[in-house]
Amino acid sequence: MNENSAPLGCLSGVRVLDLTQFEAGPSCTEALAWLGAEVVKVENPSGGEPGRTAFAGPPGTPDSFYFFEFNANKKSVTVNLKSERGLALVKDMAKKADVMIENMAPGTIERLGLGYDAIRALNPGIIYAQVKGFGEGSPYEKNLAFDMIAQAAGGTMSITGEPDGPPIKPGPSLGDTGTGMLMAISVLGALYERRATGQGRRLQVAMQDAMLHYIRFAFQTQAATGQAAPRNGSRSTTAPSGIFPCAPGGANDWIYVFARQKDHWHRLLKLLGREDLIGDPRYETPKARGERMAEVNAMVADWTRRRDKHEAMRIIGAAGVPAGAVLDTMELTNEPSFTDRGILQTVQHPAGPFKMPSWPVRFDGRTPKLAPAPLLGQHNAQVFGEWLGISAADVETLQKEGVV
Amino acid sequence: MNENSAPLGCLSGVRVLDLTQFEAGPSCTEALAWLGAEVVKVENPSGGEPGRTAFAGPPGTPDSFYFFEFNANKKSVTVNLKSERGLALVKDMAKKADVMIENMAPGTIERLGLGYDAIRALNPGIIYAQVKGFGEGSPYEKNLAFDMIAQAAGGTMSITGEPDGPPIKPGPSLGDTGTGMLMAISVLGALYERRATGQGRRLQVAMQDAMLHYIRFAFQTQAATGQAAPRNGSRSTTAPSGIFPCAPGGANDWIYVFARQKDHWHRLLKLLGREDLIGDPRYETPKARGERMAEVNAMVADWTRRRDKHEAMRIIGAAGVPAGAVLDTMELTNEPSFTDRGILQTVQHPAGPFKMPSWPVRFDGRTPKLAPAPLLGQHNAQVFGEWLGISAADVETLQKEGVV
Repeated sequence: MNENSAPLGCLSGVRVLDLTQFEAGPSCTEALAWLGAEVVKVENPSGGEPGRTAFAGPPGTPDSFYFFEFNANKKSVTVNLKSERGLALVKDMAKKADVMIENMAPGTIERLGLGYDAIRALNPGIIYAQVKGFGEGSPYEKNLAFDMIAQAAGGTMSITGEPDGPPIKPGPSLGDTGTGMLMAISVLGALYERRATGQGRRLQVAMQDAMLHYIRFAFQTQAATGQAAPRNGSRSTTAPSGIFPCAPGGANDWIYVFARQKDHWHRLLKLLGREDLIGDPRYETPKARGERMAEVNAMVADWTRRRDKHEAMRIIGAAGVPAGAVLDTMELTNEPSFTDRGILQTVQHPAGPFKMPSWPVRFDGRTPKLAPAPLLGQHNAQVFGEWLGISAADVETLQKEGVV
Repeated sequence: MNENSAPLGCLSGVRVLDLTQFEAGPSCTEALAWLGAEVVKVENPSGGEPGRTAFAGPPGTPDSFYFFEFNANKKSVTVNLKSERGLALVKDMAKKADVMIENMAPGTIERLGLGYDAIRALNPGIIYAQVKGFGEGSPYEKNLAFDMIAQAAGGTMSITGEPDGPPIKPGPSLGDTGTGMLMAISVLGALYERRATGQGRRLQVAMQDAMLHYIRFAFQTQAATGQAAPRNGSRSTTAPSGIFPCAPGGANDWIYVFARQKDHWHRLLKLLGREDLIGDPRYETPKARGERMAEVNAMVADWTRRRDKHEAMRIIGAAGVPAGAVLDTMELTNEPSFTDRGILQTVQHPAGPFKMPSWPVRFDGRTPKLAPAPLLGQHNAQVFGEWLGISAADVETLQKEGVV
């Protein structure tokens, strides 16, 4: 039991009807769930949403770790959307929901009869949210997309990689979670407004469009140079600024050091035992050091190479110079501080326990408490009962008839 | 005048006292401003927050394009925080604010006497938000950080790059804007709650911690393999999945093609004129194609190399196969669809106009309308008058005395 986490009720009473799958949509609704909304996933009775099983998970569970990560604190009901009665159930739920959200392939939700106009007619106050790969009105509005497609067409790949190498896909799933976060902000804005006005909203975001929001520093570079922002590898145009090798030389034995500001550069010189260079005009400005980049970087690398990255980060950081060891997922998982502070929490799954990242913002000193992702249809009786007044016996009948 | 954007009033009446600088904090408060909050930047009278001038901007303006991008739709007042009367002014504003937010170096806001306990005593209902590099209680809580430091120590670099190369910094400024978005979500959750309860909240996020939220797919990989998530370049473990070269072979003449699903693979085969391979067990599953990766990728590259990336994206996308051309910032800027749809909007700056990315989520078919970032102290008379009842004449006196 981690005392650094506690259940959070900011969105207590908010009902979210969640028809999303994989990551872009689920990361959005999960953020609402962390904040205390009642998020009900509507899933296919035969297997659930594809994110449950599309990826190999830890042994002992049919559900993937991926599914746990993006569906914490939610509920699950099953509904067969190929059945008329199933569709009617979803419409009945839409009448009771504050928010409905989907990220199906273009045109699918409308073909199901659950498009914006249909749902708005049932519930004019609903916040109806859609996440797509490309925007309505874009030449590619009908195209399919996944995270990497959005990252290619949204500019993030063009600015990632070595200057003389091909574009590299950034490791973070920005096309998915990055987009989901922008939709979560928009849903919350609409909810705030609705609490006062009762007014519904139609919200739409495209993964390609969302990428521009995360590369605005690159647009600054373009504005300053008049040219498309380049790829910079892990260096920048001054020194020292980039990754430096550490002992014992493994794949992630590197540390990022950034000493552009004058005071940071002076502190670093002290650390390197080169106080003699403080104030020396050959090294005093970012521009001057940029012209001696190889020499300056060698000076730093000579020091870092003789330390492991953790020691180097401790020493350089304590000296007041911005520095960060390159940590991999296993090192992050095993670093006690994340667990002690409630950033990593443990899923109490029947096949678990599994440690996973949780919502990293603290509210009054605590992160929101993790509740495990739901089993498929786990909340059928509860949700159909509470939202629609259907008895447990009737839910069983619906199940036998293949409706739920 | 773009009809695809309109002013948005979701957070109408919400007052945000904004002591942030550079990007992590400003991206957060800007999101609130897009949604209609009154966001008032408090800036140093001599030069303003460092993001105004730390980067080379377009000619004809003292402010950087960067500043325009992260401070749209905000107001600016100047306050000298080294003056007792200046500090008193900020405290008076804090009494009138719904939200106060800062991202200064560790310990600075407390040394100014504007820490959480001090502000809460003045305004128990305030939402008090802080963005730092490392979390309170982390071994590095006192360390300085910038975007790249958080990306090194938060795992994003470890999973970006070629498998046999060094870690690469992802191009997007995820350490800054990625963190800012998580704080915006949290502030909005707290605001929603507060509208009902009047309850304030203390919110804290660390850039290092926030990075874990964006690399959860990598934690899935780790859970499946038992090993730290690797770097994959722009490929994955199946084929075709990755970037393919296009004509005429420039730095960003690439297209990402992802045909893992069976139906997508079959559609792609038709496009390549290789219907004969549909159903062929040597190519039918992702695993089978993974074992013939070089051969499968060559088949696709042979086709893409003879088209430019735009044509290739049109044709492959229209065939129902996920595909995205690698677009650079200049291509994105010049693609009319972004402007037509209100994703890119134009800043009407005295030295402008400048086209820049705006909030990419549409509300009822329109993105929030861009209002330009404020000039330094542009709203002194208005804000000190409306918030604190100070007359224009008294504001002038304060200015002469160096308080504002």
